Amino acid sequence: MSEISSVLAKIKENKPLVHHITNWVTIYDCANITRAIGALPVMAHAKEEVEEMVLIASALVLNIGTLTPKLVESMILAGKKANEKGIPVVLDAVGVGATKLRTDKAKELMEKVKIDILKGNSSEIGTLAGAEAETKGVEAISLKGDPKEIAKALAKSSSSTVVMTGKEDIVSDGERIFIVKNGHDLMGSIVGTGCMVASVIGSFAAVEKDYAKAASYALSSFGIAGEIAAPKSTGPGTFKEKFYDAVYNLNEIQLNEMQKIEETK
Amino acid sequence: MSEISSVLAKIKENKPLVHHITNWVTIYDCANITRAIGALPVMAHAKEEVEEMVLIASALVLNIGTLTPKLVESMILAGKKANEKGIPVVLDAVGVGATKLRTDKAKELMEKVKIDILKGNSSEIGTLAGAEAETKGVEAISLKGDPKEIAKALAKSSSSTVVMTGKEDIVSDGERIFIVKNGHDLMGSIVGTGCMVASVIGSFAAVEKDYAKAASYALSSFGIAGEIAAPKSTGPGTFKEKFYDAVYNLNEIQLNEMQKIEETK
Amino acid sequence: MSEISSVLAKIKENKPLVHHITNWVTIYDCANITRAIGALPVMAHAKEEVEEMVLIASALVLNIGTLTPKLVESMILAGKKANEKGIPVVLDAVGVGATKLRTDKAKELMEKVKIDILKGNSSEIGTLAGAEAETKGVEAISLKGDPKEIAKALAKSSSSTVVMTGKEDIVSDGERIFIVKNGHDLMGSIVGTGCMVASVIGSFAAVEKDYAKAASYALSSFGIAGEIAAPKSTGPGTFKEKFYDAVYNLNEIQLNEMQKIEETK
Repeated sequence: MSEISSVLAKIKENKPLVHHITNWVTIYDCANITRAIGALPVMAHAKEEVEEMVLIASALVLNIGTLTPKLVESMILAGKKANEKGIPVVLDAVGVGATKLRTDKAKELMEKVKIDILKGNSSEIGTLAGAEAETKGVEAISLKGDPKEIAKALAKSSSSTVVMTGKEDIVSDGERIFIVKNGHDLMGSIVGTGCMVASVIGSFAAVEKDYAKAASYALSSFGIAGEIAAPKSTGPGTFKEKFYDAVYNLNEIQLNEMQKIEETK
Repeated sequence: MSEISSVLAKIKENKPLVHHITNWVTIYDCANITRAIGALPVMAHAKEEVEEMVLIASALVLNIGTLTPKLVESMILAGKKANEKGIPVVLDAVGVGATKLRTDKAKELMEKVKIDILKGNSSEIGTLAGAEAETKGVEAISLKGDPKEIAKALAKSSSSTVVMTGKEDIVSDGERIFIVKNGHDLMGSIVGTGCMVASVIGSFAAVEKDYAKAASYALSSFGIAGEIAAPKSTGPGTFKEKFYDAVYNLNEIQLNEMQKIEETK
Repeated sequence: MSEISSVLAKIKENKPLVHHITNWVTIYDCANITRAIGALPVMAHAKEEVEEMVLIASALVLNIGTLTPKLVESMILAGKKANEKGIPVVLDAVGVGATKLRTDKAKELMEKVKIDILKGNSSEIGTLAGAEAETKGVEAISLKGDPKEIAKALAKSSSSTVVMTGKEDIVSDGERIFIVKNGHDLMGSIVGTGCMVASVIGSFAAVEKDYAKAASYALSSFGIAGEIAAPKSTGPGTFKEKFYDAVYNLNEIQLNEMQKIEETK
C-alpha cells in the first residue's frame, strides 16, 4: 500500500475526533468533509467547554473566517490545551491582510499557541511572513517574492508546517518543501474549499505525526477528488455533490495513480 | 388513508410555523428539511424576540449543538413561553455527555422548561437517564443497559416523550414503546441527519398531539425517504440531494407500504 | 449585447467584492451564489473590522434574518462607512412584521444608514410602508393595498430603490416601476432564495449605478436560472444543484430570450 492510502485507511479505522472552532459560513462543509474523509467532526466554541472538548479530540482546527475577539479567546484556550495534550493544531488564516483585526489575531494566535500547521493562500501566508501581499476579502491578489522561499522561511521562523494553497500547493516544514499539483479549477467555483481542506489536513494530521507529509497527503487527496468530480459536473452545483461522493469513495488505486506530490528545494 | 399519511397531509395543509433555536452547523438543513416536509421554518435566537416569535409558532425546536450559556438563556425564555401557549417543545440533546456544559445545560433546560419531546442518540439519552454512557463529540460510543428500558424510565421520570435514535429508533412516552426500523446507513455519511429529524419531529408534533405517535411517524417518514434516496446515490453528495427530493415527494403509497413502526414492551 | 448581459459580463470582469453582514441560516448560500454569479463574497461581522472591510468592498449587503442588537450595531457601522465611500447598500428586511425587534431594527437601519436598495416580500415591505400586512416568521401572509403603489410610495419617501419580491417581483425607485416575471415555483421549495437574490442584487449594483435597473436585472437573471433548472429537477435537492449550475452558466442568449422585465406605472 502506498503511504498516502495507508494514512487514509488509518483515518477510516481510527475515526479521530477533529474539534473545530471555525467560521459561520463554511462550518457545515467543514464538518461534512471531515466525515466524508472518514473522521468525526465536532464543532464547539463556548469558552466554557472548548478545553474539555479538546481532551477527547485528536486534532484541533482553528479558522478565523468570521472571527470576533471573543471567538479568538476560545481558540486560545483550546489551542493551549491541545498543545498540552500534544494533538496537532491547524490554523487557517482566512482573510489575513484584508483587515487589521485578522492580521493581528492570527499573529496573537501564533504567539500564544504552538500552531503545528499554518495554512493560507499566498497573500495570507505572505502577510504573516512580512512579505508584500494583497488580500481582497478572502482572496489572494498578489504576493511579491518566491512563494516557496517565503513558505519555507516562515515555517522555519514560526516552527510550524506552512501550507500555502494556490494553483500548486506548497508545503514546508522549514527543511523540506513539497509541491502538490492535484486539483481542478472548478474547486474555485464554490465557496469553502479552502476551509474544507484545512479540515482534511486536520484529519490526516490526527493520525500522521509527520505534519508536512500529512498536509501534502491531505491536499493531494482533496485535489484528486476534485479531478474525479470535475468531468462529471456541469457547474458548481453538480460539482459539489460529485466532489463529496469522490472524497467519500477515494480508493487506493486512485490515490496511487493520481497523486502529484513532489519534493523540491 | 393510513394515519401517518394523514398527519403528513395535515402538515402540508396547515403549514405550521416551527421556531428553531439551534446550532450554527446544521441550521440551514434544519430550516430546509422543515420546508421540504411541508412546514414553515423560522430561526430566531435573540432574547429580545424569541418569546414574540413563539407566539406565532406551532412548535419550538431547541438544539444545543453549538450552545453558549447566552443561547441557552434564549432557549429558556422561548421554552417557557411555548409551555404557556401549549405548543410542543422538542429538545435535541446534542453532545450531552461529551462536556459538562452540555450535560448541565440540557438538565437545566429540562428543569426550567417542560420538554415535550426529548431526543438524543443512545449515549446522550443514557447520560440524561443517569446510565453509564460515553459520547465522543456528538457520536454515541456506548451505553450500558437495555436502551428500551432506559428510554421508558426517563420518559416516565421526566414526563417527556423520549426519542433515542440509533440503528433502530426507540420512542417512549413512559407507557408505550415504539420501535422505528426505517432508515439507511448512508444517512450516517452526512452530517446533520440527527438535527434534521428533530425538525421533522417538531413539524409532526405541531399537528399531532399524541407526541409518541408524532415522533414515530416523523422518524419513519424520514427513514423512508432515506431508503428511497440511497439506491439512487453514489455517495454522500448525491445522497443528500436525492434525500431532499424524497422527503419533498413522500406520498401515501410509500408511507403505507414502507413504514416499519412496531409497538413493543 | 443586451444591457442585462453586458452588466453580467461586467460583474465577471470586475469581480466586485460584496461584503455581507447576514444571517446564520443562509450565510453559506449567500456567499456561494455571489461567487456563482461572478463576484467575490466576503462575510465579516465583527465591529472591529467591518468598516475596514467596507473600504475594500464594492457593495454591502445587510440581512436581518437572525439579527441581534449587537449585530445591527455592526451593520450600522458598516453602512455609514459604505455611504461615505459611495458604494451601494442593500438591506434585506427578513421577518419584518413578525416581531417588534425586526421591525424596529429595520427602521433604525433605514434612519441611520442611507439604504440604496430595500428588499423584502410583500408583508415585510408593506410593514415598512405602514400598510396593513401580516408576516408569519419569514413568510408573507397578506398585504392590504396595491403592492405596486406601496412599493413606489415607500421608494419615494425613503429615497431607496424598493424591491418587493413575490410571484411577480416589483422594483421601484419612486419614479419608475419595473415588474419582473421570471422565476419558478420550485424556488420556493428551498430555503434561502430570498436571501440569495439580495446577494445577486448587491453584485449587480456593484457595477451598475442605476439601482432600479441593477435590481431588475438581478431578479430576472436569478429567475431565469430557476426556469432553466426546474425542468431538470425532481425536487428541492436536485433543483438546488441544477440552479447553481444554471446561475454559473447564464449566457447572453438565455438572458436575451428569457428576460421578462416590464416597465409599468
